[in-house]
Amino acid sequence: TKQSSFATSDIRNCTTSSPFLPPTVTNTSSQLNALRQRMQFYNISAYIIPATDAHMSEYIAERDARLAWISGFTGSAGTGVVTTKKAALWTDSRYWIQAERQMDCNWELQKIVWTDSIGEWLLQEIPAGENIGLDPFLFSIDLWNSYAHVLQGSSRTLVPIEDNLVDLVWGSQRPPLPTSEIYLLPETFTGSTWQEKVSGIRSQMEQHSRSPTAVLLSALEETAWLFNLRGDDISYNPVFYSYALLTTSDISLFVDRNRLSAEALQSLSALCPGPLCVQVEEYDQVRASVQAYAQGDVRVWIGTEYTTYGLYGVIPQDKLVESSYSPVMTTKAVKNTKEQALLKAAHVRDAVAMIQYLLWLEKNVPKGSVNEFSGARYVDKLRREKEHCRGASFETISASGLNAALAHYRYQWSTSGDAADFSFCCRDGTTDITRTVHWGEPTPFQKEAYTRVLMGNIDLARLVFPSETSGRMVEAFARQALWKVGLNYGHGTGHGIGNFLSVHEWPVGFQTKNVPLVKGMFTSIEPGYYQEGEFGIRIEDVALVVEAQTKAYLTFEVVSLVPYDRNLIDISFLSEDQYLNTYYETIRQRVGPELQRRQLEEEYEWLRRNTQPFSRGTLVATSLGTLAITSLVSTLLPDRQA
Amino acid sequence: TKQSSFATSDIRNCTTSSPFLPPTVTNTSSQLNALRQRMQFYNISAYIIPATDAHMSEYIAERDARLAWISGFTGSAGTGVVTTKKAALWTDSRYWIQAERQMDCNWELQKIVWTDSIGEWLLQEIPAGENIGLDPFLFSIDLWNSYAHVLQGSSRTLVPIEDNLVDLVWGSQRPPLPTSEIYLLPETFTGSTWQEKVSGIRSQMEQHSRSPTAVLLSALEETAWLFNLRGDDISYNPVFYSYALLTTSDISLFVDRNRLSAEALQSLSALCPGPLCVQVEEYDQVRASVQAYAQGDVRVWIGTEYTTYGLYGVIPQDKLVESSYSPVMTTKAVKNTKEQALLKAAHVRDAVAMIQYLLWLEKNVPKGSVNEFSGARYVDKLRREKEHCRGASFETISASGLNAALAHYRYQWSTSGDAADFSFCCRDGTTDITRTVHWGEPTPFQKEAYTRVLMGNIDLARLVFPSETSGRMVEAFARQALWKVGLNYGHGTGHGIGNFLSVHEWPVGFQTKNVPLVKGMFTSIEPGYYQEGEFGIRIEDVALVVEAQTKAYLTFEVVSLVPYDRNLIDISFLSEDQYLNTYYETIRQRVGPELQRRQLEEEYEWLRRNTQPFSRGTLVATSLGTLAITSLVSTLLPDRQA
Repeated sequence: TKQSSFATSDIRNCTTSSPFLPPTVTNTSSQLNALRQRMQFYNISAYIIPATDAHMSEYIAERDARLAWISGFTGSAGTGVVTTKKAALWTDSRYWIQAERQMDCNWELQKIVWTDSIGEWLLQEIPAGENIGLDPFLFSIDLWNSYAHVLQGSSRTLVPIEDNLVDLVWGSQRPPLPTSEIYLLPETFTGSTWQEKVSGIRSQMEQHSRSPTAVLLSALEETAWLFNLRGDDISYNPVFYSYALLTTSDISLFVDRNRLSAEALQSLSALCPGPLCVQVEEYDQVRASVQAYAQGDVRVWIGTEYTTYGLYGVIPQDKLVESSYSPVMTTKAVKNTKEQALLKAAHVRDAVAMIQYLLWLEKNVPKGSVNEFSGARYVDKLRREKEHCRGASFETISASGLNAALAHYRYQWSTSGDAADFSFCCRDGTTDITRTVHWGEPTPFQKEAYTRVLMGNIDLARLVFPSETSGRMVEAFARQALWKVGLNYGHGTGHGIGNFLSVHEWPVGFQTKNVPLVKGMFTSIEPGYYQEGEFGIRIEDVALVVEAQTKAYLTFEVVSLVPYDRNLIDISFLSEDQYLNTYYETIRQRVGPELQRRQLEEEYEWLRRNTQPFSRGTLVATSLGTLAITSLVSTLLPDRQA
Repeated sequence: TKQSSFATSDIRNCTTSSPFLPPTVTNTSSQLNALRQRMQFYNISAYIIPATDAHMSEYIAERDARLAWISGFTGSAGTGVVTTKKAALWTDSRYWIQAERQMDCNWELQKIVWTDSIGEWLLQEIPAGENIGLDPFLFSIDLWNSYAHVLQGSSRTLVPIEDNLVDLVWGSQRPPLPTSEIYLLPETFTGSTWQEKVSGIRSQMEQHSRSPTAVLLSALEETAWLFNLRGDDISYNPVFYSYALLTTSDISLFVDRNRLSAEALQSLSALCPGPLCVQVEEYDQVRASVQAYAQGDVRVWIGTEYTTYGLYGVIPQDKLVESSYSPVMTTKAVKNTKEQALLKAAHVRDAVAMIQYLLWLEKNVPKGSVNEFSGARYVDKLRREKEHCRGASFETISASGLNAALAHYRYQWSTSGDAADFSFCCRDGTTDITRTVHWGEPTPFQKEAYTRVLMGNIDLARLVFPSETSGRMVEAFARQALWKVGLNYGHGTGHGIGNFLSVHEWPVGFQTKNVPLVKGMFTSIEPGYYQEGEFGIRIEDVALVVEAQTKAYLTFEVVSLVPYDRNLIDISFLSEDQYLNTYYETIRQRVGPELQRRQLEEEYEWLRRNTQPFSRGTLVATSLGTLAITSLVSTLLPDRQA
């Protein structure tokens, strides 16, 4: 059979063919060799390896970093496919440079973002009649179906293999399951009690036209939010491995019981027995329990984006009530008044830490005593000192020069700093902010690019739009100032953010699958520009969706409170509009007193200096709208991309 | 059984319960009564009636106007559902006022636009265990599946009934099949020969990863475009009832052979036998022929948006190659150089007719001698006189005052004119233009609303964006100036347009299902504002997608050439930007000589008067972007919607 055609001799030996393997690259020959042996045993010609875990988490624990282990690529988004002869990795443009730096010659990078491209590549590489293997617990229903759709009628079969083949090869080297405590979030930091949340979800079940009898929760944020519990199973994300099945009469939480703190256990069982009693079942039992439940006269509501094909498959088709997101996801997306206040308070404290850091950089960078690594360490230290704060919500990205051109690269050692992406996870709210700074003499193009990124940030933040407008419909406002001169960025424009939960809290955001914007949602607004091999710019703020003065219409209220680098703003691009000055006045009012209270006098002076009103004389204020983008601008950068 | 519960006594008798039936309303009691008897015979509790035909046409022939006949509602978009006791109609906001004017008390208007709402209404109205009937040849695959999805597991069954129940009731009163000639479009007016088009589609089949062996064409525009044939089966749309099956070796055109002109028959059979020989088969044979073809070792490529569930069902699942649109649809969407020139030429002649009309209105409206009907008749006459022109591409909408607030209403008799929507179908290109005019003293709010609609038109037309940006991502630029003060419009922002084909030529446009914008596409740009019961505004132009000065980026070139009403423009809203003046200079250069050639001196003077440059002194030209929308504006209209 065709299976016999793959012998170890076909696998390129990287160390031989490429005498110099850069230090950033992982040699993956032995992993791939072992995986291919397993593939032969299971009679599959290709194996698909996603970058996610069984909960469709965007950020994952080390033990779930299968793609990184097999390929060397450590970015947070990507898919690997290993065939008998080839290994290919798909990722989006944020990670192309990183992937090329990290992968050895066993791997080819596929830069086609279109999701069907993986299936089409498989059609080319895999002969008819052969099998393609996947772990059904690592793919969402929609993703599984999209592969099935491309392969439909092609005589290539998608085979669900419940033993994960990478895990089998990884063996004892694979990091173990976490044992750390799962703890109760104090009431001060929760928007409402978990019982109130459960009742709210149950009333949504009652109001649903299909009257579901249960909701199955697969995403780790869902259980953490619903039960007001937190853990630390995933770095920078305070969640814990779990599932939940919430029925009209019962609640099952699937989790390692031994890890629950006494307080947490007490909270869950306070009202037992009864409809508000949480039964704790073993994490591994979820599949069997859902299968048993689905035998009855029931209808199970699932969110297709976060439920795996493996779990989906145990519920009979006619007992499924499907929506893109579970009611827990969509309810969590809209913050109540208390949650809004908590998130805003976290941003004031975060601004203090940021200002301390920016001042420290300003003083130390010219001396040459800072590098990206020490800079990142310093800001983390500053933030950890603030009340309620447990740690970064993702690894602080403090990149300089070349590395700043990598939208999501982590810090590298270098000698001057110009971009910094900061996120911090406090018990009251998660923050996420990016400021690009420059202490030297920026080039005119750097200033233009920076100012256009800022214009995009402001254009979107100031937009007035009808309630329930999809983010997808408005995100181009963050791009138009860049588009105007042929520039763009290859990542999304923003994402929701949690109350001491994920720093990327979907489904709020500006992408196709995100839910319509309504008041009470928080989203980041983060346009950027990356000149490969030269420099990178991003300006990110977090904003709350609020009612506009015009009734029934919405706009954003920026809750990040850190000024932008004046050295990088080309004032001639900005209108005489007062928005920036108004925003800076807000920063002074909210952050100034906090700095004084902490007796940070030097920082207070820095704040005053950096929030001085912009002034350009007595320009006539009648010009309006995008009409005002004059041809003057488009001639400023002739042949920019030439 | 439940079936016995519907007796004629349950059906409200409109004439009794409502002694006054307005003249705009159709009494539908007898039609509904007859339909419900048929429904009882087929054992169904609900019957769904779409506004489309078996080809998913947007505009339909009278014999396909089943929804209009059963409900009285004549709008081009809508769905009716008749149950044993109720009759409900769903349509979008463009048609709400019209539907309320046209439907009697048997019908309830549902204003929920969400597509799942019909299914959810059915779940409420129809008990479990009962059946819902549909004609499988009147629903696209996607639409059928979306109904099936909502009803999934609910014990209500979707029953395909091949006899159309409305047709059975309509009987001999239903308009007959057309018999008019199907003719060949002269080579002067085609972008390429039909043989070249067929070869192009076949090479797309070869390049497709699934290697389809055939393409099935269901949309009437597809066959008309591919074979360079035209007919007049649907008013204002030069198409004819037909299907086509294009295989790697054969071509079948399913059409009434007797209607083909000698020239058309000769063109189709010129290269017979061989791969470029068109076999003409009977229209009714399509299903049997496709079914027979699908028995072989074949793969049939279909566009799911235009293929009906009935035809789809005869092809085995594993032999289907599905995409949203067939390669004919997507190829037709991008005009080649010759097609672009033809469409542009049509717009110059159209501008002449429009200017003649606007001048005529300007002179006659103040005298009180014009009404909406005579106005529309006059413009149609003017356009028919121009070369190559066969008739309006849809019924000219010339609405005034109150009626202009109905986005798509047809003309009514009235005494003053202020909005006009014109479209004309010439053999070289189809045109579509809307100008709103006012010969009296517009109110400040009318001027502000008009100017904001114009700003939206210009903001979108001037946008620079990357190639393959979806229209959905940029359409909000046409809305932002209105949104800023809490105004909006309830219809789409634009649509593709054909070369002597449909005036709405999908899939080009700004809606979710439309294809990404690439150079060579034509689209209308048509924001509006409608103040119910008071006035309506729309400004529509046709624009070609062209390369921007910035390499690899695109923008629009407006090809409509008729100035806007100066009386309605509030110049203080517009920036000092020169766009309008540049556009007006283009109009003078392209239309002026044409008016002079025709010795239309008075019109030529009107053109010069109405394209004079706007001037507002020496405003500083440095303000930029949407940043420039000042708070000044938002205070101009305090409590507009109060």
